Amino acid sequence: MKQPNYTELFIPFLNQETIPRPRYRALFLYLQQAIIAGQLPANSRLPATRELAQLLQLSRNTVKQVYEMLHAEGYIETRQGDGSYVSPQLDGRCLQAEGSTAPRKKGTVRLSRKSRQLEQLRSLYHHNREELLLPAMPALEEFPWTQWQRSVVQAGRQMKFYRSSSLLGDAGLREQIAAYLESSRGIRCHPDQVMICSGSQQGLQLAFSMLLDPGDEVLVEDPGFPGIDGAISNAEGVKVSVTIDQQGFRTDLLHNHPQARLAFITPSRNYPMGYTLSLERRLQLLQWADDRECCIIEDDYDSEFRFDGPPISALQGLEGEHKVIYSGTFSRVLHPAIRLAYLVIPESLVEPFCRMRSIQDGGLSALPQMALADFMARGQFSSHLRRMRKLYRRRRDYLLQQIDLKFPGILAWEPSDGGMHCVFRLSELYDDQKIARIANQQGLGLRPLSYYFDQQQPINGLVIGFAGFSEQQIDQGLERLRTILESGQKKG
Amino acid sequence: MKQPNYTELFIPFLNQETIPRPRYRALFLYLQQAIIAGQLPANSRLPATRELAQLLQLSRNTVKQVYEMLHAEGYIETRQGDGSYVSPQLDGRCLQAEGSTAPRKKGTVRLSRKSRQLEQLRSLYHHNREELLLPAMPALEEFPWTQWQRSVVQAGRQMKFYRSSSLLGDAGLREQIAAYLESSRGIRCHPDQVMICSGSQQGLQLAFSMLLDPGDEVLVEDPGFPGIDGAISNAEGVKVSVTIDQQGFRTDLLHNHPQARLAFITPSRNYPMGYTLSLERRLQLLQWADDRECCIIEDDYDSEFRFDGPPISALQGLEGEHKVIYSGTFSRVLHPAIRLAYLVIPESLVEPFCRMRSIQDGGLSALPQMALADFMARGQFSSHLRRMRKLYRRRRDYLLQQIDLKFPGILAWEPSDGGMHCVFRLSELYDDQKIARIANQQGLGLRPLSYYFDQQQPINGLVIGFAGFSEQQIDQGLERLRTILESGQKKG
Repeated sequence: MKQPNYTELFIPFLNQETIPRPRYRALFLYLQQAIIAGQLPANSRLPATRELAQLLQLSRNTVKQVYEMLHAEGYIETRQGDGSYVSPQLDGRCLQAEGSTAPRKKGTVRLSRKSRQLEQLRSLYHHNREELLLPAMPALEEFPWTQWQRSVVQAGRQMKFYRSSSLLGDAGLREQIAAYLESSRGIRCHPDQVMICSGSQQGLQLAFSMLLDPGDEVLVEDPGFPGIDGAISNAEGVKVSVTIDQQGFRTDLLHNHPQARLAFITPSRNYPMGYTLSLERRLQLLQWADDRECCIIEDDYDSEFRFDGPPISALQGLEGEHKVIYSGTFSRVLHPAIRLAYLVIPESLVEPFCRMRSIQDGGLSALPQMALADFMARGQFSSHLRRMRKLYRRRRDYLLQQIDLKFPGILAWEPSDGGMHCVFRLSELYDDQKIARIANQQGLGLRPLSYYFDQQQPINGLVIGFAGFSEQQIDQGLERLRTILESGQKKG
Repeated sequence: MKQPNYTELFIPFLNQETIPRPRYRALFLYLQQAIIAGQLPANSRLPATRELAQLLQLSRNTVKQVYEMLHAEGYIETRQGDGSYVSPQLDGRCLQAEGSTAPRKKGTVRLSRKSRQLEQLRSLYHHNREELLLPAMPALEEFPWTQWQRSVVQAGRQMKFYRSSSLLGDAGLREQIAAYLESSRGIRCHPDQVMICSGSQQGLQLAFSMLLDPGDEVLVEDPGFPGIDGAISNAEGVKVSVTIDQQGFRTDLLHNHPQARLAFITPSRNYPMGYTLSLERRLQLLQWADDRECCIIEDDYDSEFRFDGPPISALQGLEGEHKVIYSGTFSRVLHPAIRLAYLVIPESLVEPFCRMRSIQDGGLSALPQMALADFMARGQFSSHLRRMRKLYRRRRDYLLQQIDLKFPGILAWEPSDGGMHCVFRLSELYDDQKIARIANQQGLGLRPLSYYFDQQQPINGLVIGFAGFSEQQIDQGLERLRTILESGQKKG
């Protein structure tokens, strides 16, 4: 059998500027590749270790180790007294890898229908923290890092003693959350009904996969939170938009959707309009869930920030825990990097939810959960909330004042009592999508109000975040917006 | 309209041993409940704040605050100069809540077919860390807590500057993983192909939901890892078991399954047998994936621990990254509480995987990822691996020696070069399921080998973990096992 020309074979190896470390791994990969690509065909003899070591200026031990690895993995075999040969079993089996003349075919991978459907969804905005006036952005610079660091250090220490591995999450954190929800949100739950999730997105996705069969209808608010589309699509459910008005979700339209399995709503503050679901409609909605054996997912995304009194109680507390799944998050009230959220699950659903969770991810890392539990136990969470409520109110008032001053007749506030953003109707002289597109290009994170509408006639307007921005930043952002509006961006 | 008897109405409130704090919340919930349950019907007059404060011995401001809350949430209305009344809108709308005569119906919630199917799966063992000889349990007491704590503190500090929010996970950690995989596992990937997951379970579930349509076949090893059943079922795929032998997955049987979309395999060490997939079969498998446009999921769960030489290279490195999705985890090599794992995704699939990830959970908390990145960057990860490789080898050898000594003719080792557990064939005089059941009741975590078999004729045997246990604990565990075997647990 014709022997390969070794010197030629190793030219590319020798020509490398530096050999990547560990060197034995580099040589192993090189020889492995040469064998697979057929440059060292089956039954060809490898150079003696001493010879190769000299050629490559490596130690003989390195080369020996590589030969042992090749041997252990079946690439070469040792013939008594006659050195190493490429395994005869590899004859005709070479993959058409790089370096070979016939390029290996790079067939595409067929994705599941479900994953392909996600491509069809309306594209969501990418949250860029550098953008001014971005909605849902908390005041990052106000986060109490020193206190947080104290909790992190404590959690690191406690991790050593961590024993529980409940699918619901860290028991200490669940106790803190249950206590907080009871005193601040009027929610009635046992800590064993609280499930810690990675962002509210995970909780919503989990709830949909638990409750929806393909084709099942989900009622959502219109206008509403566009991020929900993916979770519904992933469960192969069908989104059905229901109009809202200033009393919230139009429960008088429920009878139009006898097939609905589920309603996803934001009773405390509709996203984005900020309307609160009235008591009468709350009771109607609960009655509907009872009559139709449907569930309600209550997304309570920023109800902590109500400025003119204590937060409106959650729907869950009104209900007696049977049909409402409550979803809350720390990303908006604390810091996005913490990325912890939670569901409150009706008692009868806890076990099935845990079963699904064991398959979906088996639970989360203990460290951030323990840190947050400590942070809450030391009162840092509620004290931060109180501070932010005051700060955000000041910032909101400043925004409203400046809008009045700078955009009279162009932007009109749609009143809402709290939150982290304001909604403004935009004069019909302008097109909100066009204005927002230009604004985004210029580093402004404001959103066109029409983007949140699905079936209902959209309102021309702008959604402007204030929580994460100082007065100076608000000024800066509004100044840029004024320039855009003034620079002939009118319709037609 | 007849007024309720206030004194009577408030007896349960007054009879509480202590009023839960905050008191205004307790009173609010009490009145809310009384209104919903119809004890305070629509249009009935509430006591004056002064009167109620006196009755309940609360400050008048507290009562006032509660009335304001009830008013804000629509429960009561104020009539000019005439005090507060339950809202007339609530007439006839009372929910049949607790305290009412007609108990509210507690209809069951209908779960999705998918979630109901999970109930049908063979039940998995619950991992109880207190159990001796539990497989897959690392040496927790050897974990370098001081070094870890250093990384945790560092991560807490760095979090302040955290900007990225890639769906793939923390960029620093992904760089560390890519470098480690290249040098230790022969994997070729860019950090942007690494996706951080919460446990390997999340990665597997994600891959299945990306690649499987309902009814699609997934080839798995028999015997194999039972934890995979749930992820396949959740994607509504169909599991197809393929026999393994000492060369691993029987690629000669591939042609029996022309409909297969995907193969899930453990090429480095079959779970639980420990067999390594031969090079010849690796090439055949890759050829199959190319020809059929199928994907391979390579689960490399404990390949770090090979005792007689460097770890066997991963299949992924052989392939050129087009069809193999590689799954690895830190739970087994470091500590279960860290709960971080990763996928290496073919370049062409990164974008679709990220899209699905944005819907499934939107990424993980930064803190543990940053801590692990620091831990790896300081060389602590590889140094811990090296130490554990030595320790586990000693423990494995000790286990084998003691088994030989204590169970001659009863337990025969099924050789495998590494890992964290050993497999023993059990004398046919005993039934492995029965022995394991009794052992589990007595605090032993050993598993019956037959449990891992699906279609193939099971081998009667025991799977015994050694990595997490000192010689003394191994002695203790084996002593208990001996008592069980001796106490007349033979068949028949």
